[in-house]
Amino acid sequence: MSQTDCPLCQNDGGVLLWRDAFCRVIRADEPDYPGFLRVILNAHVKEMTDLSVADQQALMRVVWAAETALREVLAPDKINLASLGNVVPHLHWHVIARFEDDPHFPNPVWGARLRDTPHAASPDWVEALTAALHSLIGAGRGCNDAKAPTTTLSRRLAHARETG
Amino acid sequence: MSQTDCPLCQNDGGVLLWRDAFCRVIRADEPDYPGFLRVILNAHVKEMTDLSVADQQALMRVVWAAETALREVLAPDKINLASLGNVVPHLHWHVIARFEDDPHFPNPVWGARLRDTPHAASPDWVEALTAALHSLIGAGRGCNDAKAPTTTLSRRLAHARETG
Repeated sequence: MSQTDCPLCQNDGGVLLWRDAFCRVIRADEPDYPGFLRVILNAHVKEMTDLSVADQQALMRVVWAAETALREVLAPDKINLASLGNVVPHLHWHVIARFEDDPHFPNPVWGARLRDTPHAASPDWVEALTAALHSLIGAGRGCNDAKAPTTTLSRRLAHARETG
Repeated sequence: MSQTDCPLCQNDGGVLLWRDAFCRVIRADEPDYPGFLRVILNAHVKEMTDLSVADQQALMRVVWAAETALREVLAPDKINLASLGNVVPHLHWHVIARFEDDPHFPNPVWGARLRDTPHAASPDWVEALTAALHSLIGAGRGCNDAKAPTTTLSRRLAHARETG
């Protein structure tokens, strides 16, 4: 799969909650799962070990910010993290709030379904989560913070956006 | 689940390939999957955001070393990474070599099975992988390297092992 036919190169991949030149956080279109986020690298890169150490750390900082925001806003029973990419080999992390009464718990969301009804989340969770995410990343835990190390890839992506 | 009834506190959790005071790498007992590793924190901690930043980085360094070793030895079509812990809430990372002809590809290994036969790996892959892992971590990419930052948790675990 090349950049021209990669859905994560062509589209945000969900409802955009936060982005900078390096990566973005979207809310996945998963009606069974309030609190299903994806942290998506903006560049078309396949594996974590294709990134420099600085870029690995920059991407994981945003994954931890997404996990923290989910914990603060939804108080899930567990966080699930996964980077698979078998269908779309463009780095993206699933960051999923799991609840004991959600449709698959304790199975992975890709496993056997055990219940029919999604966990009930408060109606304003998306707004609260977006605010938490911006606050956490803006406070220097994301990759767009002036104090965070600027990575080669983030510089290249910012340059491409400015010139392209 | 407390430390006394946690299987990852009581046992290695698979065939031990590498360990230090902070974490370990095991080969999972998954006959369908040559190249199914787990990186397991030695302490009973539930979520990545329960760790300090230094400990997050120390654990992920070993995850990246496991991924690199799998790529070098087995040349998989994709690496899958996941930290779930719904059944055993003790931090452990699944690091899985995926092949287009493996039983579930392109589904996650927890999804619908599509084929019966495991991917054929060379008979000496475990030895080669163990050597690669030790070489990578020993070269400063793991958490037991003298040049790597010593974290609070790794110091505490090392102290507990020495005194306990």
